[in-house]
Amino acid sequence: MLKIAVLGCGRIGVMHAANVNAHPHAELAGVFDINSVAAENCGSAHGVRVFKSADEVFASPDVDAVLIATATSTHSDYIEAAVRAEKPVLCEKPIDLDLKRVELCKSRIGDTSLPIMLGFVRRFDPGHRAARQAFLDGEIGNLHQVVITSRDPGMAPDAYIEASGGIFRDMTIHDFDLARFMLGEEIETVSATGSRLVDPALMEKCNDYDTVVAVLVTKSGRQAVITNSREAAYGYDQRVELFGSKGMVVSENRRMNHVTKHVKDATNVSAPLLNFFIERYAEAFNAEIGHFVDVVENGALLEVGFEDGRLALILAEAAFKSIAEGRAVRIAEIARS
Amino acid sequence: MLKIAVLGCGRIGVMHAANVNAHPHAELAGVFDINSVAAENCGSAHGVRVFKSADEVFASPDVDAVLIATATSTHSDYIEAAVRAEKPVLCEKPIDLDLKRVELCKSRIGDTSLPIMLGFVRRFDPGHRAARQAFLDGEIGNLHQVVITSRDPGMAPDAYIEASGGIFRDMTIHDFDLARFMLGEEIETVSATGSRLVDPALMEKCNDYDTVVAVLVTKSGRQAVITNSREAAYGYDQRVELFGSKGMVVSENRRMNHVTKHVKDATNVSAPLLNFFIERYAEAFNAEIGHFVDVVENGALLEVGFEDGRLALILAEAAFKSIAEGRAVRIAEIARS
Amino acid sequence: MLKIAVLGCGRIGVMHAANVNAHPHAELAGVFDINSVAAENCGSAHGVRVFKSADEVFASPDVDAVLIATATSTHSDYIEAAVRAEKPVLCEKPIDLDLKRVELCKSRIGDTSLPIMLGFVRRFDPGHRAARQAFLDGEIGNLHQVVITSRDPGMAPDAYIEASGGIFRDMTIHDFDLARFMLGEEIETVSATGSRLVDPALMEKCNDYDTVVAVLVTKSGRQAVITNSREAAYGYDQRVELFGSKGMVVSENRRMNHVTKHVKDATNVSAPLLNFFIERYAEAFNAEIGHFVDVVENGALLEVGFEDGRLALILAEAAFKSIAEGRAVRIAEIARS
Amino acid sequence: MLKIAVLGCGRIGVMHAANVNAHPHAELAGVFDINSVAAENCGSAHGVRVFKSADEVFASPDVDAVLIATATSTHSDYIEAAVRAEKPVLCEKPIDLDLKRVELCKSRIGDTSLPIMLGFVRRFDPGHRAARQAFLDGEIGNLHQVVITSRDPGMAPDAYIEASGGIFRDMTIHDFDLARFMLGEEIETVSATGSRLVDPALMEKCNDYDTVVAVLVTKSGRQAVITNSREAAYGYDQRVELFGSKGMVVSENRRMNHVTKHVKDATNVSAPLLNFFIERYAEAFNAEIGHFVDVVENGALLEVGFEDGRLALILAEAAFKSIAEGRAVRIAEIARS
Repeated sequence: MLKIAVLGCGRIGVMHAANVNAHPHAELAGVFDINSVAAENCGSAHGVRVFKSADEVFASPDVDAVLIATATSTHSDYIEAAVRAEKPVLCEKPIDLDLKRVELCKSRIGDTSLPIMLGFVRRFDPGHRAARQAFLDGEIGNLHQVVITSRDPGMAPDAYIEASGGIFRDMTIHDFDLARFMLGEEIETVSATGSRLVDPALMEKCNDYDTVVAVLVTKSGRQAVITNSREAAYGYDQRVELFGSKGMVVSENRRMNHVTKHVKDATNVSAPLLNFFIERYAEAFNAEIGHFVDVVENGALLEVGFEDGRLALILAEAAFKSIAEGRAVRIAEIARS
Repeated sequence: MLKIAVLGCGRIGVMHAANVNAHPHAELAGVFDINSVAAENCGSAHGVRVFKSADEVFASPDVDAVLIATATSTHSDYIEAAVRAEKPVLCEKPIDLDLKRVELCKSRIGDTSLPIMLGFVRRFDPGHRAARQAFLDGEIGNLHQVVITSRDPGMAPDAYIEASGGIFRDMTIHDFDLARFMLGEEIETVSATGSRLVDPALMEKCNDYDTVVAVLVTKSGRQAVITNSREAAYGYDQRVELFGSKGMVVSENRRMNHVTKHVKDATNVSAPLLNFFIERYAEAFNAEIGHFVDVVENGALLEVGFEDGRLALILAEAAFKSIAEGRAVRIAEIARS
Repeated sequence: MLKIAVLGCGRIGVMHAANVNAHPHAELAGVFDINSVAAENCGSAHGVRVFKSADEVFASPDVDAVLIATATSTHSDYIEAAVRAEKPVLCEKPIDLDLKRVELCKSRIGDTSLPIMLGFVRRFDPGHRAARQAFLDGEIGNLHQVVITSRDPGMAPDAYIEASGGIFRDMTIHDFDLARFMLGEEIETVSATGSRLVDPALMEKCNDYDTVVAVLVTKSGRQAVITNSREAAYGYDQRVELFGSKGMVVSENRRMNHVTKHVKDATNVSAPLLNFFIERYAEAFNAEIGHFVDVVENGALLEVGFEDGRLALILAEAAFKSIAEGRAVRIAEIARS
Repeated sequence: MLKIAVLGCGRIGVMHAANVNAHPHAELAGVFDINSVAAENCGSAHGVRVFKSADEVFASPDVDAVLIATATSTHSDYIEAAVRAEKPVLCEKPIDLDLKRVELCKSRIGDTSLPIMLGFVRRFDPGHRAARQAFLDGEIGNLHQVVITSRDPGMAPDAYIEASGGIFRDMTIHDFDLARFMLGEEIETVSATGSRLVDPALMEKCNDYDTVVAVLVTKSGRQAVITNSREAAYGYDQRVELFGSKGMVVSENRRMNHVTKHVKDATNVSAPLLNFFIERYAEAFNAEIGHFVDVVENGALLEVGFEDGRLALILAEAAFKSIAEGRAVRIAEIARS
């Protein structure tokens, strides 16, 4: 049993705590949040220890590993602290909004062999994985195009958006990582475009976009197209299409149930999409914990680590730069800077 | 070019006339209807001769073959006249509402080698045929169950229903023939049940049913289930499922277009079904003419003939008897009687 | 927390034990099986007490309620014992293979107010429930036809089949109950037909069928059609269609994932169906436990009880009689006998 | 009856000739091709005049209008000749591969009121039109993103590709026009990327691409994403997705039939896509002729004219420039040059 402490008891931390607690090979070692009420609520729900501070977590001999689900600005500090305490880490994305801070973190943790897993949960979705596996198994031949549609069911509050680091660092970052996961080759260039169609006042508020397209190209010419919106009236739209020389495989949307209705003027009317990421990716969040346990306990190969977090952030930087300069941006420009 | 005269200029005759006229290897030799206005309208639409009588049609040297789309009560007479005139026949179903009249017709036409094709159009539907072909090609192994769903978009007028011979002779007869076509074995027993749910007054009006189920069983035990309704709010529901030892193949419904809509509370909202048989089976009606021409001109093997019309009617008789007596009725009982 | 003991540690008992154990408002009070190895394995997996006998279970003050998942022949005895011990019961179907034994059990337990819930799990499937709810909400108007397709992925071993009481008591019984649940009216007549197509030797072995159709009719004329096979090559086929005056609602099959493949000669290739009932009805089995807890703890109205078990068995008897006598059998004939 | 002569008896000209001939309000006035054998074959198939030269067509009093389906290099000349002869034109795309020639043609035909219709057939596809109509009817609110997937079933021969003007002028040009049709606003910028994945030797052969993505943005920020490939193993992939503030509407692919197969390891296996444009857009090609007749005969408003052809070509130029310069290209840059 891997004893995992959860740092951060917001919506996603609370979900992770429950998943850890329910996992057959993991145990919730305790929780921490700077908001002590949130921490108490989560801790007492599972009857586990509520740590007074993050330091207390890292120092505790009863904690084998940590799951970081706190505010983004603390991620790097906690990763560094975990490495010093020699506790494996599963950290929510992004590592930091500032690439410089990520690079600093990278230099500080050096070449640690400690597992530092990034919470790019979509890699663990059974549908997305089955699609990728079909490609790896040769079912679609050589991969030519990856088409990712990712639309949130509704705009987050202004305060969230303003602190988010912008759509590419906050939302598209999942798609950037998923594109990397699917493409199987490093990306060379990013071209992006962004609009304010959901909330035209977004520019004044925080100079962000709510409707974006990013096109990524690898050295061999494989293309990934990401289409994002902060608000889809029909729910959380999550599709991945892999197109190759021998065929296409698509990870389709998932619905609340599998009932169809047929009435005057409309047939095949289906249920709303699973809404939101906690429902849609429920199996994936569980599998993510499972992989983390497997890596730490059984030495399984880590599928998604610190470097993946860094590279996704570089793609986000490149996307912002692409819009600002109206051109395709080479990853090497960002990585080098 | 096969010169075909169309007898009967009602809805279905008018459609047949247009199909004959448009067929690359057929020519509309003229039309006839006891309603001379209907005949004139149809004839002038295609610039063809309007015959004064059916006799004139059968006597005409300019007519190679006849398509009978007149009132059911005239079918047998016209088939007999066509045989005497040695003109191949494509006759709409049913041959007659009265099995005795059919048997008389059978004895009169004897063992003519003249093609007498019955208009069981569904045999020519590309989807239904592709499903059957999959079975014949071994894709589903041995056939175990045929499930036919057939629901009309709306109840016909009382006058039509009253003259129809009842739902089994008028509507289900298509499904009886389709079941025979799919089963590939002669049917031994029929069990049926009938209700009046669309129009509860139907019993007083004409002692008919509007909602029926018929179960057919062949000697080897293959089963066919037919589910009918005179009225489906969502349109003309036409599905055929073939279930066998190695799999299942389904000929699905067809829609007006292939657009899906995704809005709040409903996803995948699809277009209404093609409505009604003239639209749904447009390709099939054309293929039917094509087969008739192929049989007459090229000696192709007739796929659906007089005997198929007789056997479908026997199944209809058996279904009525099954309801009346509350038991499974053996076909041999009807055929013998 | 409702302390539930599980009697029977076969495949389904083991599943129930895990579900009880995981339920937030239930607790696994212990397990029992006449096979002490099976009981030990199940008990130790959850760290719970292994009872030495069923009597010990019924006598234990640490057991609030019992879940009966033992061999069918013991169900009635255990229900009676539970009633004497005043412990609420959740019992797997069927109550007994012999209707006389069920009637005896009924007379013995009398008018107990103790909850005796029957494990007709399909009533708790989210899809089937949503379909029914659409009907109850008026979305399809008056109900005319219920079409249930239920095919198992593979034939059970001969020994299982021989002890099963026959397909109608063992397999169709779920569909009979589901039909009753959907129809919303008591059934008046049953017509059935049965074939041996999966295993032609079945007649010699145990005079059972593997491929059956049952047609049920209510007083108002509503029809239910059940299509069963013991073996579907493509997996566990579970569909329910409700057809009414204003439309149709269908609870569709569920698949292992939501990936589609598109290659030369085949598009939209989808994943296999969820296989078998433990996977397909996983949510339903959990909801079933939830309902039982809700009934016992909170006095919720019991949705499916002893009488439902008895009536489903009567439908099974009627189906066998219908085949034997080649006629529609009135339920009143069986209930009276 | 509008008497239309068809110039060009290649694959698409032959199809147009048949469509004109079959149209209830049009008549095939004759055909012409520089390949006199092709012209003879087409003319005799319909029993119509075979013109000796294009001049003869334009001079003929028996020709009311012309349909230009000749080699692209002749389109502008023939449009100019038709205008001089005062014969309405339906011209296949593109007007010319060279924008300068198009501009010259524009200046030469001046402000003629003669209908000059461009053959952007996809505008007439019932599915695409129904999707657009849903947007115009407010069903998806304000339009945010248009996603067009357009993949050909197979690479054309080298000679065709080399003469094609490149993928954007030859293939994507249809998608550029469709994007304009859907967006409902003029496009301001184009960003494109291109790869050689189907045929890596394409660069040496003709410096063309086979796998491209183009992103178009309008003044208000609406985005269109076009994903193209010269070769899709699963057939002719033609999808259009309109995403807006209130929902999404998708014009889905069309298949050869509506049969699904369900076997071990694969369910819902569907038929191949309609292949190729002549089958897929059969209804659209007919509707295109119908619109042309309606414009010429009844003065209906021309939906797609010379200017649409010119603007689509400008988008193609911009796309090539975008790749060459690695930047988003403003339409104004091209239009001005």
